[in-house]
Formats: sequence, structure tokens, C-alpha cells
Amino acid sequence: MTSIGIYGSNGRMGRAIATIAEGEGATVAGGVDAGGDPFPLAQTADVLVDFSTPAALESHLAAAVAARTPIVIGTTGLMPTHHALIEQAADEIAVLQTGNTSLGVTLLNILVREAAARLGPDWDIEIAEMHHRHKVDAPSGTALLLGEAAAAGRGTRLAEVRVDSRAGLVGARSEGTIGFASLRGGSVVGDHQVIFAGEGERIEIGHRGEDRTIFARGALKAALWLAGRAPGRYAMAEVLGL
Amino acid sequence: MTSIGIYGSNGRMGRAIATIAEGEGATVAGGVDAGGDPFPLAQTADVLVDFSTPAALESHLAAAVAARTPIVIGTTGLMPTHHALIEQAADEIAVLQTGNTSLGVTLLNILVREAAARLGPDWDIEIAEMHHRHKVDAPSGTALLLGEAAAAGRGTRLAEVRVDSRAGLVGARSEGTIGFASLRGGSVVGDHQVIFAGEGERIEIGHRGEDRTIFARGALKAALWLAGRAPGRYAMAEVLGL
Amino acid sequence: MTSIGIYGSNGRMGRAIATIAEGEGATVAGGVDAGGDPFPLAQTADVLVDFSTPAALESHLAAAVAARTPIVIGTTGLMPTHHALIEQAADEIAVLQTGNTSLGVTLLNILVREAAARLGPDWDIEIAEMHHRHKVDAPSGTALLLGEAAAAGRGTRLAEVRVDSRAGLVGARSEGTIGFASLRGGSVVGDHQVIFAGEGERIEIGHRGEDRTIFARGALKAALWLAGRAPGRYAMAEVLGL
Amino acid sequence: MTSIGIYGSNGRMGRAIATIAEGEGATVAGGVDAGGDPFPLAQTADVLVDFSTPAALESHLAAAVAARTPIVIGTTGLMPTHHALIEQAADEIAVLQTGNTSLGVTLLNILVREAAARLGPDWDIEIAEMHHRHKVDAPSGTALLLGEAAAAGRGTRLAEVRVDSRAGLVGARSEGTIGFASLRGGSVVGDHQVIFAGEGERIEIGHRGEDRTIFARGALKAALWLAGRAPGRYAMAEVLGL
Repeated sequence: MTSIGIYGSNGRMGRAIATIAEGEGATVAGGVDAGGDPFPLAQTADVLVDFSTPAALESHLAAAVAARTPIVIGTTGLMPTHHALIEQAADEIAVLQTGNTSLGVTLLNILVREAAARLGPDWDIEIAEMHHRHKVDAPSGTALLLGEAAAAGRGTRLAEVRVDSRAGLVGARSEGTIGFASLRGGSVVGDHQVIFAGEGERIEIGHRGEDRTIFARGALKAALWLAGRAPGRYAMAEVLGL
Repeated sequence: MTSIGIYGSNGRMGRAIATIAEGEGATVAGGVDAGGDPFPLAQTADVLVDFSTPAALESHLAAAVAARTPIVIGTTGLMPTHHALIEQAADEIAVLQTGNTSLGVTLLNILVREAAARLGPDWDIEIAEMHHRHKVDAPSGTALLLGEAAAAGRGTRLAEVRVDSRAGLVGARSEGTIGFASLRGGSVVGDHQVIFAGEGERIEIGHRGEDRTIFARGALKAALWLAGRAPGRYAMAEVLGL
Repeated sequence: MTSIGIYGSNGRMGRAIATIAEGEGATVAGGVDAGGDPFPLAQTADVLVDFSTPAALESHLAAAVAARTPIVIGTTGLMPTHHALIEQAADEIAVLQTGNTSLGVTLLNILVREAAARLGPDWDIEIAEMHHRHKVDAPSGTALLLGEAAAAGRGTRLAEVRVDSRAGLVGARSEGTIGFASLRGGSVVGDHQVIFAGEGERIEIGHRGEDRTIFARGALKAALWLAGRAPGRYAMAEVLGL
Repeated sequence: MTSIGIYGSNGRMGRAIATIAEGEGATVAGGVDAGGDPFPLAQTADVLVDFSTPAALESHLAAAVAARTPIVIGTTGLMPTHHALIEQAADEIAVLQTGNTSLGVTLLNILVREAAARLGPDWDIEIAEMHHRHKVDAPSGTALLLGEAAAAGRGTRLAEVRVDSRAGLVGARSEGTIGFASLRGGSVVGDHQVIFAGEGERIEIGHRGEDRTIFARGALKAALWLAGRAPGRYAMAEVLGL
């Protein structure tokens, strides 16, 4: 039986993963939270799952690399420096970093990429998301993931076309940009919508998360799939056989 | 220059096609409406476009076959008998029948088929549509088109899994069915949404028609593409190079 | 402390109410399910809550009347005969029957009534709802509640203008009707949308239930409010001070 | 017959108003655009309609005041200085300034104010809007109008609770704030949605403009209503008898 080590074990996601682990054929090796030492857990666990904070990521990666233990990273709000650290770690261990672990969002990414690839640049792409009032970062990691899928479909990189928000006299929309809009409120688990707006018509591709267990279930599935893999970067689509 | 003959030339679509024809490099050979003789027009035109009524389709097809003129059929509300007539005509002339001529809906069909193919049968498929208060048939031809795409993605046929409406004590949903719901009101050009509802999450793939010219433009593009083709059945996806 | 008796105590709602009762300053007097005798519980409880089946309602009302115990009825799928029984019971005990016990839906009803009262009959009213795959009746009790609010706003009765579903060659929309459309799938708690469709514009007033506890919480609040009341019919809006 | 003078007569709105004026029992006194002298038109017209630019507003108001001609102002993107000028002008002439002239949006404002008044501060308010790719300001004037209605319902002022956009590590949502999100793309006439997000449930109140004539029709109706009025500020709700 695969044993899972959880970084951020007292957070919502950490607790949800621990709750469902047994039913999915896994055991929980233990958990670490803010201030805890990540190294012993990395030694014990077959695979690690990180739903903590960007600030803690560096030490978690160091622990994983030291122990040669694969790691699934679901923490959001990552900066370029964090992505560089992940890239480095992937030379030595198996790493799967994703802004969203649900099956539905994973499929959404594929659909968005395909739509962006087939529609011309005269179709404007906008991404809206809504999350509960406690979320601290914007746009959501999932929204950025969808933006990357759209940019990839168009043969460009998100960083070059990204418009994070609009306020004031911002001028007309620039062709080829991808706009983001973030709403926050109540207890919304996570809604995302990608809009392709053409002349006289719109295509809308969206996802609604009703229940946080979809992320825990997907993260656990990813962890079970990642345990024992060779060093390198892996993606959710592979886990789900897409 | 290709000359277009319009069956149902006084209807909304017929008039819209005539209005934009010149700008798209076509001429209008003429039009026929209820009670008119369809044969002379079929002789004159390079290609025919039919946006009339199911009742008139038989004579329009006969005229097209007699004149060996290709025909684009956008009339909705067709019954199995009409589809049999179309199948027969396609042995002798080029025929493109579609429930929706917009680029957006054509792409939507492809996305829906792919999503249905990748998601398991534990994801329920529902199709909702809204149109203006004057529409006489339900579900819309486009909704049925999307239903066929979903059914094809699952390796089944729509006729076997279709549930047209729910009213009363209908019981729990049967796995594998595809449900339809039709709303009517105001001046809505045409909204369609395909919902994939799984445990704890939903994927929604939709299209909003803002302006009826998208259908006229697509129908005209289809007619220009169909003129001169060999006998057989053709599809919108081919016209648009998808 | 008020003691609550639950008819349908093993159903989703019954269990949810029992779970949260203590936190809201109530005790659970007990529960009765299919086949159980409702009379002893009616004697013990200060107030009854019914989330069972239409078939069981008659005996539950008889028990409540015999014991002179107020009752909140949240069971859906009621027929005119059930409403007649409720009317009769309200001569002798306090009765609050509602198709939806959430605060949000209660406010929605008020907004819908007001919008319907202010907009002319040239604005078509349509009501769409989506629920999980296990729901057996359509339209939902809440959708009918919203339809009644819209009809009341227009000074008419829902029974006279209701169109439950559209399939086939149904003809153009009749002015003044209120249309319903029901979607079923996945684990959707309950989404409702009332659309006012005018010439060139639409107003949409909707509610999304994310979590079944909103109904349990509202039902419990209604029960605590109803305990000790004089015989008669009461409404959710009163409970919530609206 | 009332004669209408149009500032911004070559813009979309200006042209639409001129097109429908006759059918609504009005005549067009003339039009002025960027660089034109606004004073002669103000002398001739019975009432003025301004759909130009914030920069031109000061001279338009001066012309209206000099000629004692009432003015309807539909120009968006106004700053506090513009509102101060309008306030000043209203001492001498009748002024109706609005961010949106449609009947639907006017009703929406009333519903939003009422919902905000009845729901507690534990319901978060968010306002999302989408417009065509040519729109230069964000949030839209209509979105701000809806925000003011929500703030008024809560007994506060929008300026004190307004959050225009979210990007980066913005932290958790502050109670009582009203958030805005703006999407731009394609040919969208104007969609607005006000979301009230509570614990476990959401209320969504939205408007979709399908056709720009709704604004022209409402602006014309407002102009006809305003002609001959005494000095002061007037509101769309009054025009429409709401």
C-alpha cells in the first residue's frame, strides 16, 4: 500500500486527502505544517503531496530531493522563482505541479487548447473565475493553467499576452491578449469560465466545482500514480490517461 | 461569380443571406417561397440554399435533383422521413444538411464529441437551449445536432438515449441518457449549452448567437463551398476546414 | 429547548436537520420513516418537520392535527389533493408548507414577484432548474414556487399560464405563459433561474444552492419559529422577517 | 414635435438615436461631434442627448446651460470632476445622467438595491460585466450604477467599499466590500451580473443586452420625458415610471 506524506496537512485540502486516503487504497505517512520539519516525513513517505504555501515550498522541495521522494504540488500563488525551483527538483525526482487536480478541469484544459488552436485571432479570449472569500491570490492557479492552455493552442506564451485586470481608462482591447477577471465571495468552491468572443457569437467553456473532495480525490490519484516514477515533470493529463 | 438560389427567401434567414451575398462574392439567382414553383430557380442557380419549412422540402429536393444543382439545407424541425429524402437526393447531387450554420456551433460540436468520448458514463449529459418567442419547434435543430455529437462521442446513437423533456413524477435519471430542455422568449437569437454533470463537478460547453448574420454568413460560405461538388453528403466541419 | 420531530428522518434532509439541530438550540424528539407510526412522535415533539413522500403526507398531517403539533412541510411533488389536506389541517394547527427552505430562494421569490409586477406582458417569463440525478419529480417544487411568485406579480394564477415542457412542433410562444425546463444530472444541489426575455434584452434572476445544509438550516429555523404558533398557514418570508 | 440635439452624433449611440427618432415621435435638430461648436445646437434643440466623451462634457454642459436646454447624459467613463459639473448645471437646467438607458437595467438597479437591503453583510457582493472589444473604460458605467444601487441598499457609499480589480496576492476578501470584474471581447453589447454570495448559496441578478437599440430607445424616451422639465437632477427610474 502506498503511503502519502502531506505538507499542509491542517489545511482544507490536506485534511480532505487524509479523510479519503484509506478508501482509495493509500495510507497517510503523516503531515507537516507551518514551522514543522519537512525532512523526516519525506524519508518515510512513498510520495509527498504539497498543499501548503509558496513560502514553504523551497524547504519542502529540498526535503523531497534529499529523500528522493516524488512530490505532487497543488499549492497555488507560485511565482517564477518557485517554478524555477520545481524545474530544478525535477532533474532529481518525479514532480507533478498543477494548479488544479480535478478531472473536469484537466479535460477543460484540453478543450480550451483545442478551441484556441482552431479559432482565429479575431476571437478574443477571456477567463473569469470565482472562489470563496478566503482565497488570497488572484487570478486562481487554475485560471492561469487555462490561460496557458489557450496560449499554447495559439502558439504563444501566456506571459506575453496576459492582461490580469482592467480598471480605469484602459483603452480598446489589444488583439491576441488573454484577459483575466477574478471574483471572490461566499463559500464558492471554484468556478472557471473561458470565453471565446467572436463577431456576433461567443463560445463559453466552463467548470463548476461543487465539492472540494474532487480536488482531494484527484490529488490522491495523482500521488498514487506518481509514486515510483523516474525523475522528471509530469502532468495531470497523464495521470488521468488523457 | 457563384449564383445562389434561395428557398424561403422571405424568411429571416433568406433575407439575411440575400443582404450579405454581394459582399461575399456571390449573386442572388432568385428566391422562392410558399406556393412558388421551385423548379425554374433550381435550373438557374449554381447552388441552392433552403431555409423554408419541412413541408416544402420534398419538392425543393426534387427540383434540385432534376436540375443537378447542389443544395444547402438549414431548415429545422425535420422528421425521419425528411432525412430519408435527403439521403436519397445525396445519391445524385451534393447535399449539406445542418441544424446550424455558424462557425461557433460547428466547433462546439467537435468539443462536445470529444468531451463525451473522454468522460465516462457516470457524467450525465444535458442540453439546454433558448430561442426567441417565434420559434415553433423544440428542441432546436442545433440542440439535436449537439446531442448527436455527444452520442457519437459515447459510441451510441441519439435516438436510443434521447429524453426530450421532463414533467411530472418522471423518476430518477437513467444512466447514459441525454436530456433536452427548451426555453422560449423575447428576441433571443439562439443560446445552447451542453452540461456534463459528474460527482461534485460540472463541465459546461456553450454557444451564444448574438446576431442572426452569423448563420447567414456561414450558410453562404457553405453554399459557395458546395457549388460544383460531386454528389454525396457533406458536413459544416468540412466547409470550415475543421 | 424546542424538540423537533422529523418525518423522513433517514432521508438526506432528515439526517441533515438532525446533524445541525443541537448547534441551533434544538433537540431531536425522534424520527419516523416509511412504514413507521407517525402518531407517537407527534405527541412528543414541540414541532414537526416533514421531508418524506407525498404518499405519507396524509397520515403525517392526521398525526399532527390529533396532537395539535405545528408542522413544517418541505416534501416536494405534492398534488392538488395534498394541498387540500394541508389547507384543512391549517384550520386546526400551524402549518408552513414550502417548496424551498433556503434564505436565498425566499428572497428570490420576492424579487421575481416584483420584477413580474413591473415588467409588461411583452416580457416572456421562463424558469429553468437543474438538480442531481436522483430527483424524481419535475419541475422542482422550488421552480413551481418561483412560477407562482411570477404569476402573482402579474395578477394571474400559475395553473392558468403554466407550460411544463416543450417537445415537437409546439408552435410559437403564447403571450403571458410561464415556461418551465428541468435538467437532471450529477450531484447538483439545486440551481434555479428565472428569465424575463424582452425585445433586445433579458433579465436573469437566479439562485445556486452549493450545499444541502442551507435547506436544513432554513427548515430548522422555520420549525423553531413555528413552534407555539396559532393555527393557520405561514410562509418562509415571515420566518425570515422579510 | 420634440426636436432632439445629439452630442456625439457620429458614434454608435448617436446614429442609433437618429435612426429611430422619427418612429418615436421626435425630430433630430442636428448633431455635433469632436471639434464642433456645441452652442448653436443647444439653442435650436428642445432637449439634448450626450453620448460623446468625458473630455467634451464640460463644453456641452456650458452650451446647455447657456441655452437653458435640458440634457440627457449617457456618456460613460466620467470622473468626480464631471459629476461636479453636472451637479452645478442641474441648478439651472434639467439634467438626467445615467450609465445605462435600458428599461431592463433600470429595473435591475431596483432589484439589486432591494436584495442588498434585505441580505446581511455576510453576503458578499460582486459585479461582473462583459462588453465588446472596443470599449475603452472599465468597469462600465452600468456596473458602477449597479454598485451604487447595492451600496445604497446597504446604507453605505460605493466609493468607500469599492474594489475595482484583483491581481496578485491580494489577501482574503474584506467584509462589506463590493468587487468589480470587467471582461472585454468580440461584439458583446453589454452583459452585467450582480452576485450575492452567502454561505452555501448564491443569488445572481443579471442583464443581457442583445441589441444596442435598447439603449437608443431608452435614451430617446428619457429625452422626450425630460424636455420642458424644471431645473434639477432626474433619474431613469422616473422616466420609466418605476
